Amino acid sequence: MTLASAVRGTIAGVRATVAALHAELPRNELVVWTAGNVSARVPDADLLVIKPSGVRYEEITPDNMVVTDLDGRLVEGEHAPSSDTAAHAYVYKHMPHVGGVVHTHSTYATAWAARGEAIPCVLTMIADEFGGDIPVGPFALIGDDSIGRGIVETLSGSRSPAVLMRNHGVFTIGRDAKAAVKAAVMCEDVARTVHIARQLGTPLPIAAPDIDALYARYQNVYGQETPK
Amino acid sequence: MTLASAVRGTIAGVRATVAALHAELPRNELVVWTAGNVSARVPDADLLVIKPSGVRYEEITPDNMVVTDLDGRLVEGEHAPSSDTAAHAYVYKHMPHVGGVVHTHSTYATAWAARGEAIPCVLTMIADEFGGDIPVGPFALIGDDSIGRGIVETLSGSRSPAVLMRNHGVFTIGRDAKAAVKAAVMCEDVARTVHIARQLGTPLPIAAPDIDALYARYQNVYGQETPK
Amino acid sequence: MTLASAVRGTIAGVRATVAALHAELPRNELVVWTAGNVSARVPDADLLVIKPSGVRYEEITPDNMVVTDLDGRLVEGEHAPSSDTAAHAYVYKHMPHVGGVVHTHSTYATAWAARGEAIPCVLTMIADEFGGDIPVGPFALIGDDSIGRGIVETLSGSRSPAVLMRNHGVFTIGRDAKAAVKAAVMCEDVARTVHIARQLGTPLPIAAPDIDALYARYQNVYGQETPK
Amino acid sequence: MTLASAVRGTIAGVRATVAALHAELPRNELVVWTAGNVSARVPDADLLVIKPSGVRYEEITPDNMVVTDLDGRLVEGEHAPSSDTAAHAYVYKHMPHVGGVVHTHSTYATAWAARGEAIPCVLTMIADEFGGDIPVGPFALIGDDSIGRGIVETLSGSRSPAVLMRNHGVFTIGRDAKAAVKAAVMCEDVARTVHIARQLGTPLPIAAPDIDALYARYQNVYGQETPK
Repeated sequence: MTLASAVRGTIAGVRATVAALHAELPRNELVVWTAGNVSARVPDADLLVIKPSGVRYEEITPDNMVVTDLDGRLVEGEHAPSSDTAAHAYVYKHMPHVGGVVHTHSTYATAWAARGEAIPCVLTMIADEFGGDIPVGPFALIGDDSIGRGIVETLSGSRSPAVLMRNHGVFTIGRDAKAAVKAAVMCEDVARTVHIARQLGTPLPIAAPDIDALYARYQNVYGQETPK
Repeated sequence: MTLASAVRGTIAGVRATVAALHAELPRNELVVWTAGNVSARVPDADLLVIKPSGVRYEEITPDNMVVTDLDGRLVEGEHAPSSDTAAHAYVYKHMPHVGGVVHTHSTYATAWAARGEAIPCVLTMIADEFGGDIPVGPFALIGDDSIGRGIVETLSGSRSPAVLMRNHGVFTIGRDAKAAVKAAVMCEDVARTVHIARQLGTPLPIAAPDIDALYARYQNVYGQETPK
Repeated sequence: MTLASAVRGTIAGVRATVAALHAELPRNELVVWTAGNVSARVPDADLLVIKPSGVRYEEITPDNMVVTDLDGRLVEGEHAPSSDTAAHAYVYKHMPHVGGVVHTHSTYATAWAARGEAIPCVLTMIADEFGGDIPVGPFALIGDDSIGRGIVETLSGSRSPAVLMRNHGVFTIGRDAKAAVKAAVMCEDVARTVHIARQLGTPLPIAAPDIDALYARYQNVYGQETPK
Repeated sequence: MTLASAVRGTIAGVRATVAALHAELPRNELVVWTAGNVSARVPDADLLVIKPSGVRYEEITPDNMVVTDLDGRLVEGEHAPSSDTAAHAYVYKHMPHVGGVVHTHSTYATAWAARGEAIPCVLTMIADEFGGDIPVGPFALIGDDSIGRGIVETLSGSRSPAVLMRNHGVFTIGRDAKAAVKAAVMCEDVARTVHIARQLGTPLPIAAPDIDALYARYQNVYGQETPK
């Protein structure tokens, strides 16, 4: 596969962004060793940039990022792509509005996933960012489309940018990779807070219209940037 | 609105203080991403200095802090003020002795807030700093005076400088911004310790006269500075 | 009070040691803000060196350490001594083999203290360092000898260098300040591990003769230094 | 004992590797103070390199590592070997495929060990790395072969590279020291996640054939390196 020079320039920028965002995973205590990854769609091309397999976070550079097509086949890179590439690729192929995907086994979110239990929307921060409960996806083996399909099917029926894959971990999506990383950070934070709240009783519910109001406001007016 | 040059000089100092204190939030693990903020009253002016919205902690500088009036309207700054500004402003307007306000979603304190449960005064450190239980404020939607009113009404009937806003997070006050940050740090610390104590049984109570004695002593003799 | 020049030289070394050991408290997550302190006996003098009150850990230097006599009265220093000085001084006065004392409100140990419950000796590490359960001391108000007496009475009947003071926090002792800091680090570590073990069931007991054998071995053969 | 110069060169490399890997223990929060150690077999020699006793992690250098034979007797080094050396040596003597051993008292894994309870294989990450439940070894006193025998007997009947020694802590093995460190990091991570999952209910099981499929895939295709 030959890449036009305009696409090559775009890829260089995406490599730099994806490499830099990987530093957020250990900084926010979402990962240990090599067990999490960030990818981004290459704009105007059926390509994605993702972490190489088995490389530790402190060794990640723009140059060792890997480029694949949307079937997860290697296009550019000296390393093998992350073993989770098929799942990322499936999401980009079937959710055209998604520009970034993150996968982690962050502790509290994965604990909810181990029980196959959604995180209930009992904090204003959950209403803001996730617009309701954070849903659970199916158990799926690595190696074919199962994980990708589970992610897409679960998130298609939800406002949440995060899905708890049963017995496995978390996948998050965003309009770009930074938004997907933010969702992964927020998902673990609320997974932990609601877990701790539940340990000593039952968190109070938030009424559905209040959830809707919080979500609408946060998605439209928060931050300095254009709305998400 | 034109600012007199004396006020401008004061504001420069307050900007520096508020910017520096934001570093305490991640250092003390009270926040993730951009989800917490510090403000300070500008002495001798109906103004406050607060964090800009959606800016990350490592990017905070004195220059990108925002100045608003006590109705939360932008007076000076290139960024939009924090979306929590209305709550901070309401506190300064209605509690003239308050010089600093902090808002976080720190994990353990927010877990108590999710259940709508006050933190009982079962540690000498709680008696020292909070003078009794740490109270719960009402559920309130962002966007008008509701959060500010909830904070002021709850704290007006308490010796505590911290309030747990239901399903939301923590607000703390102080004679200055540093004291409010200290209260936020202590609030999370005792929220965590009492949570953990409660997981395996019931903490022993402290008698009310002992709480009073501890509070009186700590407020008057502790530290190198003039009493708080 | 005039200090002989030999004692002055000794004090300079003790100031440096005590200042440096304070860095271990935040490094090992035993403290927040200013809420913990280390002291050391000045050899061959009825004096101790301790943290100044209300000073943050990153501002601690050998020069701002404070020297008091064994009644807690200021002998040398520009700052007021820690408000816990009376307790440290009482220990040195009544336990001549003690060369260092540490006080913290470390989270898990303080949670056991809040329930007034001893930490059971269910780990080899507890047997090694503490020689049995970590005992609970009485509730005591700050301001007179009560805390000091509680520490001395509790530790006099135990092999443990740590005592959990009810509703308050932890005091540890050692032949020198470094050993007391080590005991404080180990105390929090085992308080946390046993807490977590207890959350999902009952830790298995260790037989008393095995505890004795582990304690005897660790106190006599471990490490590169002369036995403790 | 005289060492041939070829072996001396090999030892220099092993010293450097083992010293560097010790930094992973505090970085991954597996240890406090001096309470954990890494060793590696010296290829083509009946020797091992291990941490000196009682030395803190920030003071570890290639030069202060200790060399012993496979009975744990000192061969080279200015310090005494770790008090756990006998256990490491026993493993190398009886498991010829093992090139690295790690010992920690990491919090969550040790909490399972305190109850004498295996960590159930309810996460894909456990299936990947451990191939099933993480087993419990016997209670054993330090000072003779008991700990080493307990490790070898437990791991010989398991695909797991980690064993939870009752009331004590964790030992992990690998084809080299880095693999053993990775197993120690993963063991604590899954011990924590499954603990948290269990606090609020029962994790869903993974079917045995799925565990087998995950283990086979991970052991054979993951990462950039030759299969483990």
